[in-house]
Amino acid sequence: MVTKSRAAVIPKPNAPLIIQEFEIPELTPGAALLKVANAGVCGTDVHLWHGKLAGVPYPLIPGHEVVGTIEAIGPRPVKDLDGNVLKPGDRVTFHDVYNTCYRCWNCLIAKAPTKCTNRTVYGITMDSQKHPHLIGGYSEYVYLSPGTHIIKIPEHVSFDGASAVGCAMPTAVHTVLRSPLTWGANVAVQGAGPVGLMIAVLAIINGAATVTMLDQAKNRLELAKKFGVTHTLNIAETSLEDRKQKLMDISGGHGPDIVYEATGNARAIPEGIELVREGGSYTICGQYTDSGTIEINPHLMNRKHLDIKTVWGSETLHVYKGVKTIADNYHRFPFDDLVTHKFSLDDAQKALDAQESHVSLKAVIQPNA
Amino acid sequence: MVTKSRAAVIPKPNAPLIIQEFEIPELTPGAALLKVANAGVCGTDVHLWHGKLAGVPYPLIPGHEVVGTIEAIGPRPVKDLDGNVLKPGDRVTFHDVYNTCYRCWNCLIAKAPTKCTNRTVYGITMDSQKHPHLIGGYSEYVYLSPGTHIIKIPEHVSFDGASAVGCAMPTAVHTVLRSPLTWGANVAVQGAGPVGLMIAVLAIINGAATVTMLDQAKNRLELAKKFGVTHTLNIAETSLEDRKQKLMDISGGHGPDIVYEATGNARAIPEGIELVREGGSYTICGQYTDSGTIEINPHLMNRKHLDIKTVWGSETLHVYKGVKTIADNYHRFPFDDLVTHKFSLDDAQKALDAQESHVSLKAVIQPNA
Amino acid sequence: MVTKSRAAVIPKPNAPLIIQEFEIPELTPGAALLKVANAGVCGTDVHLWHGKLAGVPYPLIPGHEVVGTIEAIGPRPVKDLDGNVLKPGDRVTFHDVYNTCYRCWNCLIAKAPTKCTNRTVYGITMDSQKHPHLIGGYSEYVYLSPGTHIIKIPEHVSFDGASAVGCAMPTAVHTVLRSPLTWGANVAVQGAGPVGLMIAVLAIINGAATVTMLDQAKNRLELAKKFGVTHTLNIAETSLEDRKQKLMDISGGHGPDIVYEATGNARAIPEGIELVREGGSYTICGQYTDSGTIEINPHLMNRKHLDIKTVWGSETLHVYKGVKTIADNYHRFPFDDLVTHKFSLDDAQKALDAQESHVSLKAVIQPNA
Amino acid sequence: MVTKSRAAVIPKPNAPLIIQEFEIPELTPGAALLKVANAGVCGTDVHLWHGKLAGVPYPLIPGHEVVGTIEAIGPRPVKDLDGNVLKPGDRVTFHDVYNTCYRCWNCLIAKAPTKCTNRTVYGITMDSQKHPHLIGGYSEYVYLSPGTHIIKIPEHVSFDGASAVGCAMPTAVHTVLRSPLTWGANVAVQGAGPVGLMIAVLAIINGAATVTMLDQAKNRLELAKKFGVTHTLNIAETSLEDRKQKLMDISGGHGPDIVYEATGNARAIPEGIELVREGGSYTICGQYTDSGTIEINPHLMNRKHLDIKTVWGSETLHVYKGVKTIADNYHRFPFDDLVTHKFSLDDAQKALDAQESHVSLKAVIQPNA
Repeated sequence: MVTKSRAAVIPKPNAPLIIQEFEIPELTPGAALLKVANAGVCGTDVHLWHGKLAGVPYPLIPGHEVVGTIEAIGPRPVKDLDGNVLKPGDRVTFHDVYNTCYRCWNCLIAKAPTKCTNRTVYGITMDSQKHPHLIGGYSEYVYLSPGTHIIKIPEHVSFDGASAVGCAMPTAVHTVLRSPLTWGANVAVQGAGPVGLMIAVLAIINGAATVTMLDQAKNRLELAKKFGVTHTLNIAETSLEDRKQKLMDISGGHGPDIVYEATGNARAIPEGIELVREGGSYTICGQYTDSGTIEINPHLMNRKHLDIKTVWGSETLHVYKGVKTIADNYHRFPFDDLVTHKFSLDDAQKALDAQESHVSLKAVIQPNA
Repeated sequence: MVTKSRAAVIPKPNAPLIIQEFEIPELTPGAALLKVANAGVCGTDVHLWHGKLAGVPYPLIPGHEVVGTIEAIGPRPVKDLDGNVLKPGDRVTFHDVYNTCYRCWNCLIAKAPTKCTNRTVYGITMDSQKHPHLIGGYSEYVYLSPGTHIIKIPEHVSFDGASAVGCAMPTAVHTVLRSPLTWGANVAVQGAGPVGLMIAVLAIINGAATVTMLDQAKNRLELAKKFGVTHTLNIAETSLEDRKQKLMDISGGHGPDIVYEATGNARAIPEGIELVREGGSYTICGQYTDSGTIEINPHLMNRKHLDIKTVWGSETLHVYKGVKTIADNYHRFPFDDLVTHKFSLDDAQKALDAQESHVSLKAVIQPNA
Repeated sequence: MVTKSRAAVIPKPNAPLIIQEFEIPELTPGAALLKVANAGVCGTDVHLWHGKLAGVPYPLIPGHEVVGTIEAIGPRPVKDLDGNVLKPGDRVTFHDVYNTCYRCWNCLIAKAPTKCTNRTVYGITMDSQKHPHLIGGYSEYVYLSPGTHIIKIPEHVSFDGASAVGCAMPTAVHTVLRSPLTWGANVAVQGAGPVGLMIAVLAIINGAATVTMLDQAKNRLELAKKFGVTHTLNIAETSLEDRKQKLMDISGGHGPDIVYEATGNARAIPEGIELVREGGSYTICGQYTDSGTIEINPHLMNRKHLDIKTVWGSETLHVYKGVKTIADNYHRFPFDDLVTHKFSLDDAQKALDAQESHVSLKAVIQPNA
Repeated sequence: MVTKSRAAVIPKPNAPLIIQEFEIPELTPGAALLKVANAGVCGTDVHLWHGKLAGVPYPLIPGHEVVGTIEAIGPRPVKDLDGNVLKPGDRVTFHDVYNTCYRCWNCLIAKAPTKCTNRTVYGITMDSQKHPHLIGGYSEYVYLSPGTHIIKIPEHVSFDGASAVGCAMPTAVHTVLRSPLTWGANVAVQGAGPVGLMIAVLAIINGAATVTMLDQAKNRLELAKKFGVTHTLNIAETSLEDRKQKLMDISGGHGPDIVYEATGNARAIPEGIELVREGGSYTICGQYTDSGTIEINPHLMNRKHLDIKTVWGSETLHVYKGVKTIADNYHRFPFDDLVTHKFSLDDAQKALDAQESHVSLKAVIQPNA
């Protein structure tokens, strides 16, 4: 029985990652031990390293996008979300958000569990200094506390395929579920990063008539084409008027039925309002950090008779549906190809650097490779 | 049989209204002649007089809020929306928007008939110079062309009650129907003008737990209290932080579930986003004219996980439901008291002046009084 | 500190209730002790006594509709659903359904928590033989286990008012939330028992234009009138054709927009399909026990273009919203008057008998009176 | 200019079809003349021949599934639904339902235009004895009256492709739009006729995880497989318990999220209620004719917490979206292969016989071939 786990730790903001060895705590009833195959390196991890997120306890073991195999189960059976009893060797992932309480007003009355204030997050807000310590994926093992929502990875999906889209997929699933997407829609997506790309993938899976990706990075637009978007628009090479006209042409003269925002840039908002058709839908999920204020025209918004949704966080449903989506459409999209860089645990710092410099599409750390 | 009708005409923008006599055209199959009881004087009429609306043909007979009695029916039976065959003497109103085509993409495919480009409006965009001339309510008679959507006024509702809320009620009905209002909600309404007041009335009718009206005009806030709003907030006497705190207190610490915007002022938008609770709904119907741009914070919008709707125009459903709402709740609200000023046709200019100077709550012209 | 609690116990199906004394267990972290003011006597309690429900452990302390005061709090603070920390003396009720897991497929993926198989129910499926024993309201004290969803009763609401509608209100809240009820609707309710009566109350609160109650018990129809239904139809004195015609007349010739079923009788279903208007909504919540099969005509269902919902169980939201509904509308409806019979704990058997013979509208047991 | 049109006429129920020559009326403003390429032979046409539909005027030119080319336009421009001005040579189809009034209570207030009583149908309820006579597709030319909703057929879609699915596609579109279908769903379809097949196609297009077709006809199940359904269940070779178990296995143990009924057989209804998962959705569109009553168990319905919709008729939206669906997915499904039999106008009787004996998948009449 394994008793120790090496892990990469951020000692404090901007300090180089160090490797530490932890005792693996005894498994309590309901707990399980996960042997990490891939820990996705996410943009958020870079932010964590730079100390840009509030409420993060350092030293920290980062890593919230984790796939691996069940190493051991505690003294009580543990089930996945489908009700299957898990056993060692099972290939799984889990919802990084833990402890959504389902007892508070936001959870039960407003039915907005992503606004539950009791939530903690593996690899982000959990405290590596406290039991059970192994709370991040940059580690040989992760201790899955009782109540962690675990999802089996279907056999035909590789670990790379399961971790290729990381936490971008649940965000995309949540976003699409809050929009009136149905087959035949003309869709535009602002921002070809991981979230935007997954929104485009979901639009394609849902039978959209056209999916137009807007970004300024040529390589990202090229990648979107590989995933099947029907049109791309480079915002560095076109004017807003060009884009409006092009989207009118693409959609038979009406403009896109649905525009999704996944940019992280406040300037995308007034453009999205310009682009969407009258009576259409605008769904915003990319404004996760504060990039300042922006001028909009309320009269234009009002005149266009819009349905605007903003989307915060992910529920377990979205993670679950994300895994199923990859499994159901595994041969239709080149998910595995997204993982372009793999690092050992000792090279965790290099993984962060690769992510920050955008060298990789998706980097993963393989602590047990 | 009556053959002539006197009408008040705007000869050209800003020119004093004149009284003209028109021949009443023969009624074609499907047409009806309405003897006007009350023609509501709307803020839009003042804008028309000042030439501020595009696409308006002058000289113009204004008046789009009209109630009266059927004077005559053409050679084919005419039915109201409930399927009743109309007969002379019936007390009715009608949807001022005419000719929604139900043949175009917006009408049939997008199901956004208020964006139909074939619409014309009695007393606003119809042309008094062309047959049938009598297209505005500032007139003894209005010629109801075939296909006009006519609604009977229930016997227990006075003409004043039916015209008291004018076109504000259909806008309010449309707005509320686009929001997730249900009983027990904590509601805030920005703007205590006619539209905001009717939204508040509808919130009360729908069993809202609390309805808070925000405005800077004391007399409007007082009126809202008479109509039953549970709280008022004077924005001239409080800070945004005050208002946020007060709305938190009113709603048990969560903030309003739904905020409605009915101000006509762009600055209301960022405030509305501040006021609504996380996971709540913001419905915007007051930005009918362009009052310029305003700065908003997209991150705040995103973080609050909002459902934002904008609302344009009115369908016949909204006019119909507005009449039924007044009838069903006639003894619960003092609708009749809203009509504070009555003018003869010859005094139509005075009516516009009263509206412009806000002397009246609701002024009506009574061409046959 | 109180150490013992007397409770009424069903020793086995159909055996007379006996009074037993239990030790009150020590409060664990998160637990609270409730001093019972009123325990509602529900039709389900009579079924329990007759042994008609599956999965019930005898001996049993019945009582799932409970209001009272907090007697003591365990070693960790306990909050109500609004986030308030509870303290001794607080007047509360709680959701009788316990242990909805929010970890299973039904809870998290299907979002149908009332189908969660982990649920247990105070006074019905919890086991009085096991710790903490005091799991039913027919008792001086109830042990509220950690995680019980507790709701404060507003000061202006009496214990009788809070318990008058028992578990009928949450069912009615759930039912109405699953229907497209909005103001101005013409509503019909099949069955004037407690659930049907509360559905009617909610329809009135939501601004229904008309609410017609159908039943065969004159006293129930009279009571419905006292609560404000606009029309009643006695199914023992009218034919189906009569009722269809009457409902057509009431609704302006279209038939009811929404029919709610709350009868417990399979024969209500084909009648409901006959009564609802074309394009209308039929919401079924009364078929909680198996009253056999019934013939329906699928072509009629199809031709009428219906929206049919069935409703099972209650979520905490529905209990919470029920309490708020009573509080918000306490002076509009005579809730307190529904409690017509009060019994001591020693007379618990008489309370069941009164319920079974329909002598009472609502009987409550007052174990500490 | 063409002046006459040969047409196949049903003189009276069950009498052999005859060929008659009609004068082509002058085109009034808004009218257009269509040269028929394919007139689909529908099961309804066989019913018409046997006189089984009420309200049908004989002699009748049947044919309500029509594609062809614009031959001539009347004295006023005619637009398609996208707003394009039509010109001779344009390849089009049209909505067979005509005259939906958009003035009545059902159209405007209930928003249930398929229940509009003013509707007439080309080839079914229009009267060939009256102007403009040429109202059915079994004819060289069809007179498209003003206000007919015309849709262009995209260039890459053949006439066979456009007429292969006939009126089954709009019904399927309407049905799917009334259900909560989204990607990843486990879907079951009762009935592998044209409507069921198109529902299955739409489920696939919308990204369903699994689509299981149930029928007793092996050839229909084989065809469904060619169109991509993931599973088939032959109801003649399995028991209900078998099918329930199989659908549980297919869906990961929960049962199908959505069951669609498209059988025409009342016995399908209780089976559908058995098959759908708890909390799932059952959408019924196949009970267009009265096949008698059937026993259901209301308690089972209630306990399963279902969302049941019934679907009547088609709106123009559904025809429009059907054409777009075929065009967008033309290379993904073998639509053209469905047209297995082609007949000349003179062989119209043989076409009906082929349809009645189920020799053909889809037969078309080609009056100008």
